[in-house]
Amino acid sequence: MHRGAYTLDMVVRVGIVGASGFTGVELLRLIAAHPQMELVVATGDTQAGTAVASLYPSLAATYPELVFQAWTADLAESNQLDVVFCGLPHGASQDLVPLLLGPERLVVDLGADFRLKDASLYPRWYGADHRVPELLESAVYGLPELFRSDLAALGGAGLVATPGCYVTTATLALAPLLSAGLVEPTGIVVDAASGVSGAGRPAKPNTTFCTVDEDFTAYGLLDHRHTPEIEQNLTGVARTPVQVLFTPHLAPMNRGILATCYARPARPTSTAEVLDALHDAYDDEPFVVVSERSPSTKATLGSNSVAVTARADDRTGWVVAIAALDNLTKGASGGALQAANVALGLPEATGLATAGLYP
Amino acid sequence: MHRGAYTLDMVVRVGIVGASGFTGVELLRLIAAHPQMELVVATGDTQAGTAVASLYPSLAATYPELVFQAWTADLAESNQLDVVFCGLPHGASQDLVPLLLGPERLVVDLGADFRLKDASLYPRWYGADHRVPELLESAVYGLPELFRSDLAALGGAGLVATPGCYVTTATLALAPLLSAGLVEPTGIVVDAASGVSGAGRPAKPNTTFCTVDEDFTAYGLLDHRHTPEIEQNLTGVARTPVQVLFTPHLAPMNRGILATCYARPARPTSTAEVLDALHDAYDDEPFVVVSERSPSTKATLGSNSVAVTARADDRTGWVVAIAALDNLTKGASGGALQAANVALGLPEATGLATAGLYP
Amino acid sequence: MHRGAYTLDMVVRVGIVGASGFTGVELLRLIAAHPQMELVVATGDTQAGTAVASLYPSLAATYPELVFQAWTADLAESNQLDVVFCGLPHGASQDLVPLLLGPERLVVDLGADFRLKDASLYPRWYGADHRVPELLESAVYGLPELFRSDLAALGGAGLVATPGCYVTTATLALAPLLSAGLVEPTGIVVDAASGVSGAGRPAKPNTTFCTVDEDFTAYGLLDHRHTPEIEQNLTGVARTPVQVLFTPHLAPMNRGILATCYARPARPTSTAEVLDALHDAYDDEPFVVVSERSPSTKATLGSNSVAVTARADDRTGWVVAIAALDNLTKGASGGALQAANVALGLPEATGLATAGLYP
Amino acid sequence: MHRGAYTLDMVVRVGIVGASGFTGVELLRLIAAHPQMELVVATGDTQAGTAVASLYPSLAATYPELVFQAWTADLAESNQLDVVFCGLPHGASQDLVPLLLGPERLVVDLGADFRLKDASLYPRWYGADHRVPELLESAVYGLPELFRSDLAALGGAGLVATPGCYVTTATLALAPLLSAGLVEPTGIVVDAASGVSGAGRPAKPNTTFCTVDEDFTAYGLLDHRHTPEIEQNLTGVARTPVQVLFTPHLAPMNRGILATCYARPARPTSTAEVLDALHDAYDDEPFVVVSERSPSTKATLGSNSVAVTARADDRTGWVVAIAALDNLTKGASGGALQAANVALGLPEATGLATAGLYP
Repeated sequence: MHRGAYTLDMVVRVGIVGASGFTGVELLRLIAAHPQMELVVATGDTQAGTAVASLYPSLAATYPELVFQAWTADLAESNQLDVVFCGLPHGASQDLVPLLLGPERLVVDLGADFRLKDASLYPRWYGADHRVPELLESAVYGLPELFRSDLAALGGAGLVATPGCYVTTATLALAPLLSAGLVEPTGIVVDAASGVSGAGRPAKPNTTFCTVDEDFTAYGLLDHRHTPEIEQNLTGVARTPVQVLFTPHLAPMNRGILATCYARPARPTSTAEVLDALHDAYDDEPFVVVSERSPSTKATLGSNSVAVTARADDRTGWVVAIAALDNLTKGASGGALQAANVALGLPEATGLATAGLYP
Repeated sequence: MHRGAYTLDMVVRVGIVGASGFTGVELLRLIAAHPQMELVVATGDTQAGTAVASLYPSLAATYPELVFQAWTADLAESNQLDVVFCGLPHGASQDLVPLLLGPERLVVDLGADFRLKDASLYPRWYGADHRVPELLESAVYGLPELFRSDLAALGGAGLVATPGCYVTTATLALAPLLSAGLVEPTGIVVDAASGVSGAGRPAKPNTTFCTVDEDFTAYGLLDHRHTPEIEQNLTGVARTPVQVLFTPHLAPMNRGILATCYARPARPTSTAEVLDALHDAYDDEPFVVVSERSPSTKATLGSNSVAVTARADDRTGWVVAIAALDNLTKGASGGALQAANVALGLPEATGLATAGLYP
Repeated sequence: MHRGAYTLDMVVRVGIVGASGFTGVELLRLIAAHPQMELVVATGDTQAGTAVASLYPSLAATYPELVFQAWTADLAESNQLDVVFCGLPHGASQDLVPLLLGPERLVVDLGADFRLKDASLYPRWYGADHRVPELLESAVYGLPELFRSDLAALGGAGLVATPGCYVTTATLALAPLLSAGLVEPTGIVVDAASGVSGAGRPAKPNTTFCTVDEDFTAYGLLDHRHTPEIEQNLTGVARTPVQVLFTPHLAPMNRGILATCYARPARPTSTAEVLDALHDAYDDEPFVVVSERSPSTKATLGSNSVAVTARADDRTGWVVAIAALDNLTKGASGGALQAANVALGLPEATGLATAGLYP
Repeated sequence: MHRGAYTLDMVVRVGIVGASGFTGVELLRLIAAHPQMELVVATGDTQAGTAVASLYPSLAATYPELVFQAWTADLAESNQLDVVFCGLPHGASQDLVPLLLGPERLVVDLGADFRLKDASLYPRWYGADHRVPELLESAVYGLPELFRSDLAALGGAGLVATPGCYVTTATLALAPLLSAGLVEPTGIVVDAASGVSGAGRPAKPNTTFCTVDEDFTAYGLLDHRHTPEIEQNLTGVARTPVQVLFTPHLAPMNRGILATCYARPARPTSTAEVLDALHDAYDDEPFVVVSERSPSTKATLGSNSVAVTARADDRTGWVVAIAALDNLTKGASGGALQAANVALGLPEATGLATAGLYP
């Protein structure tokens, strides 16, 4: 199959590496609804040999026979994969992605390993040197709202690094305001709350039901790893260094991220003007809804949609921008599929719902 | 368009009467994913004039322009509707359905008004005489797992009455055991728990967050209205009168019903035998998954799937059968769409997901 | 200090063995509100050296200096403990309790190790022979509603084995009906749901937030370990062997158990008569509330109260009895404190709230 | 009885006006645990004649006979009340409090009617002129951590206006930093999340379970009514005008408020220094816990405790201060009881738990 030449009757052969985690199970759900993708293989090293239906009964009717396989170095070749999605823990993709890349293959990495362009940020924020820094430049950042043409230019082959869930949320809230020069690039506060699925599948003391239910708490004070990625995106659109203080919180819900962002106006502005900036940026986007309504995570549940709004406060001199999305769909696997559609030359919204599950 | 002649390139024009309630919003979500259905009109008398996106931001990206309309007597004619779904409060369909029926139109009623075949049960369980009892006989009960051929025989026109959410759950758990003569028809207990969406959208003191969250309670003790409907279904498959004590409970979750059903074995049996009876009944069904796993409501979230299992207890002489589903999807709007697909001659699973949203 | 002689100005020196689990942290909370108990020492082997305030910030203001200690064989002697509560995993108490008992000391074991009177039930339901079966006879079952005089007769010294949380719930629902001969002793079904805290503090795959939230599921089908304990209690009050099928469910909430129990009437009865039997049994009890209201777990949150009701169904010939309580308070640590009060000769309700935290 | 002369064997006769709301039911729970308060009368106009046990089964065992009464103008006199707590909707206290005040009576108003000292703020933030502005000056603000000596000076008689729930949280987080001159008085952001009980008991569309569960959303953008009250408190401690942008959010939980507050350092500072400022302010407080731990609402559940921490970020030049508490206990009824204890001359912590219900 030749890249750039996908048409509406072609089948795209898909594999998932690291499919047993939450981004993996979400990809399996979404691919089942994608009319042109065929799931060929799913690996999960800690679950190798386990039936998908056993670990995830939610997929029992959809993938009754699928079994998680162990990784093998020739996985992509032996399965003739057109697309490989990687849903691996941070750090693991650096070793595997080079083995998956090929002249006619798209690799979409959902982890952090290829998101930052500046290799020197990895030791600072992720605690270790990057092992394949030469790939950082060629990796395309998988946020179609900002990098659609770069993604389309891949012509179906290459490496896409999809954004972190908090990063997508904060970036979509703030980018139009910085791009339009409406707010100052420093002194920005991103105060966000996430559902618990953002912490992944493995059982940990801080994500048991009894720890989290009926609780609201902040974590990662001052130094959450998504900070430099938010700054990278916003610096790009502002064309001047942007600095952000990011405070994530954990909310007692499965899914959803809401980011409430505070910035100083660069010049006198108004609620109408900041809303206009959002409308200008997003009214042609298939998945971003701008309105005066205060965004609600629940309205995006299971969909690839994002809700955004903004306000300017005369009294205190702050601009507030808010975005909400489903951290596993638009914030991870749905966003990855959207980016893959663009990179493959398929209609961008193929297989992706805009309607949230409600209630 | 001629009934019974739908093919894969035909468009089905759909209207929803009573679209502002939870079965309505779920229908709107599902129809958006149905490749052959086109939503033409949605009525909601208490919300007439309200934008769908305003009442349900979850649909803002999907139906940006749709506005709830007021009911009109010529609604189906003037909109050239092929299918009308009714999501009305109990009692209201008796007046409207006769106005919607037509020689080439399918009406699918999601309420209780046409579910019971015996008109004398309405005054007893619903508190009022039935106003169009002559329609009860012709209405086809919209549970494809039991009435597939009757639905198919409609050839795209007629009246379908879809089951209550608890009823679908209990019926699918118990029907194969009664049909096979494995359990006694009397002394059956159906102990079930439902998410809060089963109570509908309007704000009521017993379904506020602060009333329901972190609570588990029983309600409708001895006399819940779904009782005669469960008995009607099971009597049909058992070919002898079945009697059930049904106790519903409210669980602090949005969606999901799990029914744990207890019956006396009609003769010595075993877990293997009762599981075999479930497999025999359902292994060819697109939406019913039989396994030894204890069913989980969460595994069915947003999907049309049902999980069932059974056990026979030598020690106490009880057979236990358990089923779980999403009360708004398979238990209401998804089941209605599945029934409509069959009645229209479309592939039964068209537009319906089997994969649940997880987590 | 002499047992049986506690008066309202005496201080009771208390230790907790296994204080880092959920029954331990609940005991710490309750003892802080007990006007005569002084917490002297708390052990927690896996947490030895950890500050209580660090593991449980909920106790930071109450026990700012307390540190979990390691177990030592002379713990009770060296700390001059009057009462020791044991909140250990099943099996562990068999080794430690003999070292804690003393002529003037009360040991209250919250685990299962001394609950069953018939030692032969331990290998069957708990998988191992009992190591100190000679203690089973002398252990007093810590349910004051059934064994108040036995507890009082301890005179402040001896061994109390407090009931399992499901067991307390089911026993209090059914005991008056069996005691009064109103229902048959066999064919009883106990269908119950519990909050997640019943599974304990350690992180496990089946109790992560993302597994449990928005889910309802059954577990332990046919063979949950609380079954023989329910049967032991009910057999005692019925004076004839009672047999129960018990099906526990997991509900997405922190605390609370509700048991819906089904039994066959032994002779024609009525709702009025079964309610009367409950009133006769409980109207003088400080913690049991009988009413026609359907019990709600939330109404008991954090209190030592139990709500019960019952119905008789003419139509199907079933009696339904329902009880609700907080599994960690009345179902574990509160019930243990209540039993300790009785055994120590203190007013039974000392330090125990009847008002639930609401909402 | 003479004010200022309460001793440990005196009984305080208490009435609650507006007892059927959530602050009322929480007061009823707390007063039941107060060793010197006797609940004499509880009014609730919309619930007059309803048994407390019926509306709030959580109180059935505690107040089995209590019935909500209708308000009467001589309520305080005819019941010989020493203390009256008012839990009324905003606006209603202005008419009733003047009728309750008396030379030997303490009136504690939990609403907003007497919180603001500047009467001109009422029309702006509450939409109507104040009807008894002459009482604003004499009302003592019921936050003992800031106004302990003023409360004590009441000598058991007078008017106390207790703070809003968000206000207590934000004030306790920020006051020590402003008092010590560590942060700038303007440009402050208070980003907070609350459980749903803050919205009160009545059923409303925006607080049904199905609206709120699994959702996180902001509300009251730019103009929440607690804003001027936060500014009043902080202006008092800073001795210079303080300006705050306050953004509340709704989290899917019953209780709890967490405020994450952002301020600019007034001079170079450090995390150690800002934590020291909190320790200096609170180490002698019975209910405020300062630590490096990130505060968690759940750790305060049902208790009168507050958890606070702070950080200074060199990188972005922000100081972050966080506080968490139970909005109905310390944030409303518990804080009111604490203030009443001080005003009555009783030990401040009488009847108030520091240990949270966990899990």
